[in-house]
Amino acid sequence: MPEELRVSLDKIFLEGMYGEPTNYFCNPDIRAPVNSDFHIKPEIRILGIDDSALLSERVMIVGAVLRGGDWIDGVLRSEITRDGLDATDIICSMIRNSKHYGQIRTVILDGVTYGGFNVVDIQKLYRETGIPVIVVMRSCPDFEKIKSALKYLPDGGERWAMIKRAGKIEKIPGKKKSIYIQRAGIGLETVKKIIQLTSIRSSVPEPLRVAHLIATGIVLGESRGKA
Amino acid sequence: MPEELRVSLDKIFLEGMYGEPTNYFCNPDIRAPVNSDFHIKPEIRILGIDDSALLSERVMIVGAVLRGGDWIDGVLRSEITRDGLDATDIICSMIRNSKHYGQIRTVILDGVTYGGFNVVDIQKLYRETGIPVIVVMRSCPDFEKIKSALKYLPDGGERWAMIKRAGKIEKIPGKKKSIYIQRAGIGLETVKKIIQLTSIRSSVPEPLRVAHLIATGIVLGESRGKA
Repeated sequence: MPEELRVSLDKIFLEGMYGEPTNYFCNPDIRAPVNSDFHIKPEIRILGIDDSALLSERVMIVGAVLRGGDWIDGVLRSEITRDGLDATDIICSMIRNSKHYGQIRTVILDGVTYGGFNVVDIQKLYRETGIPVIVVMRSCPDFEKIKSALKYLPDGGERWAMIKRAGKIEKIPGKKKSIYIQRAGIGLETVKKIIQLTSIRSSVPEPLRVAHLIATGIVLGESRGKA
Repeated sequence: MPEELRVSLDKIFLEGMYGEPTNYFCNPDIRAPVNSDFHIKPEIRILGIDDSALLSERVMIVGAVLRGGDWIDGVLRSEITRDGLDATDIICSMIRNSKHYGQIRTVILDGVTYGGFNVVDIQKLYRETGIPVIVVMRSCPDFEKIKSALKYLPDGGERWAMIKRAGKIEKIPGKKKSIYIQRAGIGLETVKKIIQLTSIRSSVPEPLRVAHLIATGIVLGESRGKA
């Protein structure tokens, strides 16, 4: 990633955008202040969300609710528009309408673009659900390439703004190799603990690995690849 | 269950139908003789299969490949016809076409009827895949009721024959309460060990519980109920 881009991403880091931490939450069960660290129970409920292959205009997204890195508590499913602008709202609704809403303590996303270039605004997702969000990436995204690709889509500026709102990219140790994360509503130390707790089978946290297996298995007939 | 029915089910028990144990296997990796007991590794690969809600003529079936009662290795998906006669062949193909085929050591079914009254012939499933089959039921099925219902379907006699071929029903201890099983290609002691190994979260073995969560979650938008 070019250094000037890294600097610009640093500048838009959360506190810079949203000012001092507040206690604005939609979900009254969650009391952690913005970007704070909080206590992690081994059975913390985490929702991992992945999308399926781009086979049509509607792209299936799958949520897997796991207790820690361990066992599956529930499965959620919804659809977003390929290269659309509805991913944030649809993921918000999927979470808020779930019976697991009151228990989910963290959402883990596989990057911020779902269903092609349908960007998830993780700050909005956090504000509207009250649940901290961690974005996991196995490599540092090539923002120049993304920015170029966005020129070919309507609302490219809006999408770019949402990508920037995901905040600075931080490198943290994974199970075997380092991974890259972005975050909303959660401190770095807590992110590290959650990644360590849930990355049991690979460098990908279990809720994301399971959501990926389900999404590819259901759409393609058999699961494949990595989240 | 009426005693005379139980006796008739005993009579059709596997050895009675198929004679002495043989070494007929399609899958050369599996060397266990018919209905024998075999060694269970803690990470034994097990495929649990469940169906989804009857919302249309095509009913989705989901397979979850788990290592022991622990972590998910893969997800399979196929469709059968509601009240059709294709469940056995479609499940055979789903298994044989899977990259996990060589590793799966046991298939666990949730009863023998899928997608309404589409009966799985577990003897054929075992013969054609070479993989032992365990049928799990939380209560003893009411065969009189099933037989009556079959009168309203075409090929009722064929379906009833397949239900009988599933063999005698045996009661074994579950995690909290007893469960009922039928089996093909596997000894009772090994069934007990597998049920004990995999029934971690409830009386339902994990591969079946996970397949159920996925099937209901994908079709209904959110998982619900028990397998």
